[in-house]
Amino acid sequence: MTSYTEIRLKEYYRQGKITPQLFDVVSAPVPEPEQGEVLIKQTHMSLDPAMLGWMTDDTESYIPPVQLGEVMRSNGIGEVVASKHSDFAEGDRVMGMLGWREYATSDGQGLTKLQPGVSEEMALSVLSLPGLTAVQGLLNIGKPKAGETLVVTGAAGSVGSIVGQLGKANGLRVIGVVGSDEKADWIVNELGFDGAINYNTPNLGAQLEALTPDKIDVFFENTGGPIQDDIFNRMNTHGRIVVCGMIADYQAEQPRPGPNWIPLIKQRITIQGFAMPDHLHNAPQLISQLMPYVEAGNIKYRAHTLEGLNSAIDGLNLFFSGENKGKLLVEL
Amino acid sequence: MTSYTEIRLKEYYRQGKITPQLFDVVSAPVPEPEQGEVLIKQTHMSLDPAMLGWMTDDTESYIPPVQLGEVMRSNGIGEVVASKHSDFAEGDRVMGMLGWREYATSDGQGLTKLQPGVSEEMALSVLSLPGLTAVQGLLNIGKPKAGETLVVTGAAGSVGSIVGQLGKANGLRVIGVVGSDEKADWIVNELGFDGAINYNTPNLGAQLEALTPDKIDVFFENTGGPIQDDIFNRMNTHGRIVVCGMIADYQAEQPRPGPNWIPLIKQRITIQGFAMPDHLHNAPQLISQLMPYVEAGNIKYRAHTLEGLNSAIDGLNLFFSGENKGKLLVEL
Repeated sequence: MTSYTEIRLKEYYRQGKITPQLFDVVSAPVPEPEQGEVLIKQTHMSLDPAMLGWMTDDTESYIPPVQLGEVMRSNGIGEVVASKHSDFAEGDRVMGMLGWREYATSDGQGLTKLQPGVSEEMALSVLSLPGLTAVQGLLNIGKPKAGETLVVTGAAGSVGSIVGQLGKANGLRVIGVVGSDEKADWIVNELGFDGAINYNTPNLGAQLEALTPDKIDVFFENTGGPIQDDIFNRMNTHGRIVVCGMIADYQAEQPRPGPNWIPLIKQRITIQGFAMPDHLHNAPQLISQLMPYVEAGNIKYRAHTLEGLNSAIDGLNLFFSGENKGKLLVEL
Repeated sequence: MTSYTEIRLKEYYRQGKITPQLFDVVSAPVPEPEQGEVLIKQTHMSLDPAMLGWMTDDTESYIPPVQLGEVMRSNGIGEVVASKHSDFAEGDRVMGMLGWREYATSDGQGLTKLQPGVSEEMALSVLSLPGLTAVQGLLNIGKPKAGETLVVTGAAGSVGSIVGQLGKANGLRVIGVVGSDEKADWIVNELGFDGAINYNTPNLGAQLEALTPDKIDVFFENTGGPIQDDIFNRMNTHGRIVVCGMIADYQAEQPRPGPNWIPLIKQRITIQGFAMPDHLHNAPQLISQLMPYVEAGNIKYRAHTLEGLNSAIDGLNLFFSGENKGKLLVEL
């Protein structure tokens, strides 16, 4: 009997860096699937900023945290290596909430088969949470119109990069805020953004002004941070602000203050925070909104792949530093 | 030939107190109405926080400022003392944008006759901008539901007092924030609010917690100020924040920062700023939404009446100090 490795949450995350002390790395025997189950050997695991919330003992969170002692929650793709389930056969590639483990059994609930021709990277980078989040946030909440100007922060990230490309496909001027010149280059020259601002450079306000001559109609916020004020104060009348993430502040003991609300009245702005658990019941509709863009070749992506289950732990810190280049994945 | 007094804007307002230096008080001969005009002797003039915006040379404002040298803009009620207009007769009581003057001529555009039995105070305090603002902001944007909790700032003010009473009539728990114990007493014992907080007392957060055991679903913001953070951080999931005024910050050289946006995501909150010029085309509909509450006796008001045209100038400062008790009017 062979054994495999899984990683369980040992302590709740509070602030600062993610450390190995928060987890137990455990070896366990590979299970046999029971009648009606499949055994999956996981090959690709998604790392997402939402995990930081799942690791937090926040009773007010919209999604229950992982219980201490439980395997860490994650979306992933694997190969069915043994099946006692009539819907799945050995060799099927399946996606689901497999968790931080090399092998998992499943009764098939929440498990979907990958379409032929869809790579694991495409499935985890676009056709899952990042793509659904971008569609719900930009198209359904932000309601962009051709000719408007969109500014998206975290623009080289898994969600932001899709948001910007959806904006371009809808005829908007799109400016992305990123954390390095390399990312700025990628979103402009590979993804077709109209401009990029590296938030680690000086004179952010002046850069923003130069890149948004008609000011800003839609602001898709993934990060927070000091440029938030500059963007907020450049919003047009009847502008829409979609708040999806505040990664720059999740680590802070004392979160940075937000902008004063006077412009909300002067410009009659709407700000809406959203989180995907409210919208996952609507996933088929969101996927059908996304697919035409994917099929038209409008959505490029890049995966930043870490090697081996253990790399997931320190990998989460890349969300804070912004050093990942593209969608974070772990290959097992 | 008799003369009358009018007050013209001489300089744009920037910050700090409103001073007489901003105005020219001018004597002019009472005009004769031309064919198709009426001559109105104004008896009651409304003072509103929006005037501070009209006095500001803000090219981005949603409503054009008063031009320098023009009579200051205001809503008011007067008696027709001479008519060469077929729709109006001597003795009619009319309401319209008469301006800061004792007499005005009008071609009838935007002039409405007061219904019999409606007092000048009722007309200016409820059945005009304050009532329309409360209906649009609370009912149409805030979308309150019976059983929810509403917190309104500036709760003894012209808009806030109507907002709170509309909330009560719709079955909400309603807590008002005010600037004095006298106002707290008035909104609870006269208007029927469930509780009041005087923002000039200590431990605002603890007071708010005690008065909102089920937290807050709708926040109607008229003032800004330090309690904004406490209210914001006590919002329920899917809460709605309606931003109508930020009077505490209009005078400031450097407006106070707002709250960090993390709770917008955690609780999926919507914040919407609004201003009535966007909605005045819809005034008949708003009035028809308001009238059932008025006719059912749900809307009490009190007028704070200043005497004489000149009192308008210093009267505007009452919006900053919050010392007015009820809707500010000037009786001529």
